[in-house]
Amino acid sequence: MFESAELGHKIDNKTFRREVEQLRVALLKAQYELKEAARFPVVVLISGVDGGGKSETINVLYEWMDPRFLSTQAFTAPTDEEADRPPLWRYWRGLPPKGRVGIFAGSWYSIPIADRIEDKLSELELDRTLAELNRFEAMLANEGALILKFWFHLSRDAQKARFKALEDDPRTAWRVTKESWARLKTHGKLQDVAGHVLRITNTPWAPWIVVDGSDDNYRSLRTGSVLHEAMQRKLVEQNQARFPVAPPLAPRIDGRDVLSALDLSQSLSKETYERQLAKWQGRLSELVRHPRFRKHALVLVFEGSDAAGKGGAIRRITGSMDARQYQIVPVAAPSDEERAQPYLWRFWRHVPRKGRVTIFDRSWYGRVLVERVEGFCSEEDWLRAYAEINDFEHSLDQSGIAVLKFWLQIDPDEQLRRFKEREETEFKRFKITEEDWRNREKWDAYRLAACDMVDRTSTGQAPWVLVEANDKRFARIKILRAICLRLELVLGL
Amino acid sequence: MFESAELGHKIDNKTFRREVEQLRVALLKAQYELKEAARFPVVVLISGVDGGGKSETINVLYEWMDPRFLSTQAFTAPTDEEADRPPLWRYWRGLPPKGRVGIFAGSWYSIPIADRIEDKLSELELDRTLAELNRFEAMLANEGALILKFWFHLSRDAQKARFKALEDDPRTAWRVTKESWARLKTHGKLQDVAGHVLRITNTPWAPWIVVDGSDDNYRSLRTGSVLHEAMQRKLVEQNQARFPVAPPLAPRIDGRDVLSALDLSQSLSKETYERQLAKWQGRLSELVRHPRFRKHALVLVFEGSDAAGKGGAIRRITGSMDARQYQIVPVAAPSDEERAQPYLWRFWRHVPRKGRVTIFDRSWYGRVLVERVEGFCSEEDWLRAYAEINDFEHSLDQSGIAVLKFWLQIDPDEQLRRFKEREETEFKRFKITEEDWRNREKWDAYRLAACDMVDRTSTGQAPWVLVEANDKRFARIKILRAICLRLELVLGL
Repeated sequence: MFESAELGHKIDNKTFRREVEQLRVALLKAQYELKEAARFPVVVLISGVDGGGKSETINVLYEWMDPRFLSTQAFTAPTDEEADRPPLWRYWRGLPPKGRVGIFAGSWYSIPIADRIEDKLSELELDRTLAELNRFEAMLANEGALILKFWFHLSRDAQKARFKALEDDPRTAWRVTKESWARLKTHGKLQDVAGHVLRITNTPWAPWIVVDGSDDNYRSLRTGSVLHEAMQRKLVEQNQARFPVAPPLAPRIDGRDVLSALDLSQSLSKETYERQLAKWQGRLSELVRHPRFRKHALVLVFEGSDAAGKGGAIRRITGSMDARQYQIVPVAAPSDEERAQPYLWRFWRHVPRKGRVTIFDRSWYGRVLVERVEGFCSEEDWLRAYAEINDFEHSLDQSGIAVLKFWLQIDPDEQLRRFKEREETEFKRFKITEEDWRNREKWDAYRLAACDMVDRTSTGQAPWVLVEANDKRFARIKILRAICLRLELVLGL
Repeated sequence: MFESAELGHKIDNKTFRREVEQLRVALLKAQYELKEAARFPVVVLISGVDGGGKSETINVLYEWMDPRFLSTQAFTAPTDEEADRPPLWRYWRGLPPKGRVGIFAGSWYSIPIADRIEDKLSELELDRTLAELNRFEAMLANEGALILKFWFHLSRDAQKARFKALEDDPRTAWRVTKESWARLKTHGKLQDVAGHVLRITNTPWAPWIVVDGSDDNYRSLRTGSVLHEAMQRKLVEQNQARFPVAPPLAPRIDGRDVLSALDLSQSLSKETYERQLAKWQGRLSELVRHPRFRKHALVLVFEGSDAAGKGGAIRRITGSMDARQYQIVPVAAPSDEERAQPYLWRFWRHVPRKGRVTIFDRSWYGRVLVERVEGFCSEEDWLRAYAEINDFEHSLDQSGIAVLKFWLQIDPDEQLRRFKEREETEFKRFKITEEDWRNREKWDAYRLAACDMVDRTSTGQAPWVLVEANDKRFARIKILRAICLRLELVLGL
């Protein structure tokens, strides 16, 4: 893996100056074109051994390019807001928008590599993490990002020489610490772990570029050239490269599906409802106040046809919680900042801290529902979304966040009745628009999309609960009960 | 202050139910109208004595209104990301956008009041804080926000009775803690401090509404009614109420101003430049790595006519810092999320943490430069901006952030030369647009705006440095030197 980076590459100053002159102009040009077109973001990971020249190279890139359109994220110990959320959250937060170059000094690889060296992570755990990172990067690439991962390598001797040189110069002596010399001792172990990590995560869509770090000129020039070439190629590319996807599922030939199997006639009397409501609201209120909940969080997703009763159900849930503990996120059209990011970004923003609850009124499932049906994204986009969504929810689950998803199902007659009622009640008129009537005409297409969605994204960790919602009382109790039972399970009660 | 809130207001259940029925419909209607028009945000502060019913009332508002378009921010101890920035930062972060209602459970008043009770804050310090908060709220109001501040009052006896009642109910007993009983002892002190705070901050644009907290029905109904009435009034208001402002300064009659006083012929030889550059870059590099800098931060602002050399100057500064330590914020048109907030919001977002540097390439001064000249905001808006900007920078200074502002001045001939050069150099062509040529025609208007700006916003804490920039070398050294000297002062070196 690192052999060709130990050949002792060197570039003399004269050649360097000549090459840099051309490269700078080319890089600036590519950077401005990127900014103007704003078609994709460039994600640059700078990793490698200590003393390998990471910060020097980043600083050189800043000299060569227009620093106003570069950003660098340095990740050291997580802040408490970061530590309270899934590990990927802080990297999502730092992603560059389309049109910009974002440099990650320290990346999603740093902690797994360090943990493996210190034996805090087993080989198996590391491999599972790497598989997740590959999927994360594939998602970024599919969303259009150009991803370049640099690894600056030094042999043990070269690393030693480097530390000595830094120490001898009074301007850089501060950079060599006791920890630096300690790293020298784990050099072999780092090579083993990094070699493995690079092998597993060296994908066509997010390649590793191993660079000999010992010569400043060589390292900077190579990094700059690779960056320029990759940007240039992607700028002229007409069509985004995409992963091949299998064709969509054929419609069920016997007309039976998970939704038609629901018995929508189920209902509750007012009396039973009131009793059950008090019971489950009380239970929920205790559960979110339970000391163990402080180490968890809750994400609720509400989907369903228009007028299925999502708002009313949400109101019954919030009725048993303190308003300071939860946020409701009504999902409408994305803002322009959100449109400049991968589509999951606008949901990652709202991932709750430990001890908190986020309720999504419509959600990331819009990708496989409205965006699929209305053709707002390509078939490739919504087909790959199933796996990406499962990965997202897996991340949440892994950090102790309970995820529950509700599909509220009503029949067309009931919808019509509710639409009319809304039109007749003054303060409900805001809740019904032309669009609702148009969506109604696409009932079958939405139904098919919903069935595919349930089939492909109902997982043990993040199950779909299908709710018979013709009777609002029945639906609300079913939802409250499901949340309580799930929380009891997650809290181990 | 609290007399009428101790009269023992009570509303019986029957009356309550009847009133609520009407109020709910009215509140929902107002809420939807607010959302549709998205003309202004509603900021609701819920404060008061412990046991006064703050969380109960918030929860009732969630029941009555559509919870999807409400948000509640609970502020307890600052997170480490918050503690690293000026105290107001976390409240800016939580402001609702236009069209939404944001409830603050615990607000910018909580900490000053608590600190005064515990004698961590002197009377004088409290008064200074209150004056700042009044100005902050005036800014919000001028930006269109509807601000309502509720104070739920309880007499000492009523508070005691309330704690007893909560304790007796197994569903609420958890809410009464040792601290609650301790609060009873400081009841008198709280009344004194709160009485003073309410008096000083009871402004026409952000009034306090003192509510008797002892009866649930009365408290909820009063809060809901006040909220509804205020929203309703502001929704029908045709013109935004504004503060009277004095007319703008007359142009200088003798033609002399701070910019014409500059000697633009100053220059440096290449040799002197190289020597000075190495010297000041070295110094800056040491200063931002100084242990004392970890308790400070640095904000640099660059303004000037087009092609004045802002980018090049910024590049010389970043050249002496580590890319992981700073962010450059190039200021262009606001995003739609930014447009839904007060204009300073998009700069508060980028306030650096301790030990970090943020460089603004154009800034909040756009308000009194381009927005004034092009008529993008009203005269009232840019006239009040001077004071608002001074307050903003004062907040930064108060939390140890060094603020330095550079105005780069060139003459029209030099600008023309640079424009032409840009058009002729392939990779610089991106830097010149039609707009640059148009702005050039408004040279005098921009010049007047710049002079007014310097006169009104150059403060001891955040001075303007006027930079003679016809010679790029001279300009860059002057800037680097000014930053170093300022940092030495701030760090006490």
